Amino acid sequence: MTSDTREHILVCGGRIIHHKGFTATGLQEILRAAGVPKGSFYFYFKSKEAFGLALVDYYQSQIAEQVRPILKDASKPPLARLANFFLWFRTHFEQEGFIKGCPIGNLIQELGDINPAFREKLNHSLEGLIRFVARLLQEAREQNELPARLEPEATARYILSAWQGALIRMKAVAGPEPLDTFQRMTFEVLLA
Amino acid sequence: MTSDTREHILVCGGRIIHHKGFTATGLQEILRAAGVPKGSFYFYFKSKEAFGLALVDYYQSQIAEQVRPILKDASKPPLARLANFFLWFRTHFEQEGFIKGCPIGNLIQELGDINPAFREKLNHSLEGLIRFVARLLQEAREQNELPARLEPEATARYILSAWQGALIRMKAVAGPEPLDTFQRMTFEVLLA
Repeated sequence: MTSDTREHILVCGGRIIHHKGFTATGLQEILRAAGVPKGSFYFYFKSKEAFGLALVDYYQSQIAEQVRPILKDASKPPLARLANFFLWFRTHFEQEGFIKGCPIGNLIQELGDINPAFREKLNHSLEGLIRFVARLLQEAREQNELPARLEPEATARYILSAWQGALIRMKAVAGPEPLDTFQRMTFEVLLA
Repeated sequence: MTSDTREHILVCGGRIIHHKGFTATGLQEILRAAGVPKGSFYFYFKSKEAFGLALVDYYQSQIAEQVRPILKDASKPPLARLANFFLWFRTHFEQEGFIKGCPIGNLIQELGDINPAFREKLNHSLEGLIRFVARLLQEAREQNELPARLEPEATARYILSAWQGALIRMKAVAGPEPLDTFQRMTFEVLLA
């Protein structure tokens, strides 16, 4: 067994959990999807909870890897990069049929209240995303792109809330309206 | 058994589901919390799913009853009423220790993708809330309270997303920051 097996279990299990939720996904289901025996799972993860916590790190590193080039694209001004960041996710969700939502937000909703280890890790992950957005807004401020009424950190927190909520609404609608409203209101009204 | 028993089961079961989620809550737990035998439950609800769907109606009617006087308070201008509407929830969540979140939003996140009956009912409930907020913003427009750049319906959708997302973030933080940021950014920046 190599560390590829570990990642393979995270990919397969993570896909089911993203769709069905953590509690509703049984260990057997994860083993079946990954095609590994129980011993292999427990070689890498000491419990289902440990697997879930590792999954948060995995989701986070996957998201960061996908969006880093968009956010660091120096050929575009900061607000255009931020807009592309959210459009990247829109394309992703369109391919998925506008379901599932944010894997991090989903786990916060499901486990934040009832499992302190998950809450702490998920909050850390969300705060990392907020800092990323706040840095882009700060850059926009320095380039005179950000309206004077907006304070970068509070605005980043608000935008991230609007995004997480748009993803909740998307799951109720199963269509693009919530993401399109988010994009238009954020970039053509709030930040304009 | 009276219809009071039905409501009693909804109250007791709803409290557990609001905290732990629908899938994670067993029928036995609901029966124990309500202090009723299984037969009593099945007299009112033909399945756990039927109970969950009735719970959405119950949550919605409870929320509507609590906030109707605030929203209809003709002594205050529309935007002040809207601000009080969200502040009412903030007080509620403060009493709860800033956990649990929106019972409707939670069920959308948990069941929207995997159960079409829930999705439809939850979306209907959310759309009702959006129409309510849009009507207040329309009133604000008619009273020249709403900045010209804001279109009432899209703004209502955006604000509801920002609210649902603030409640997700609240569960990660277990503190007031997301709700306070929501209130300040919505009423002192977006709608100002």
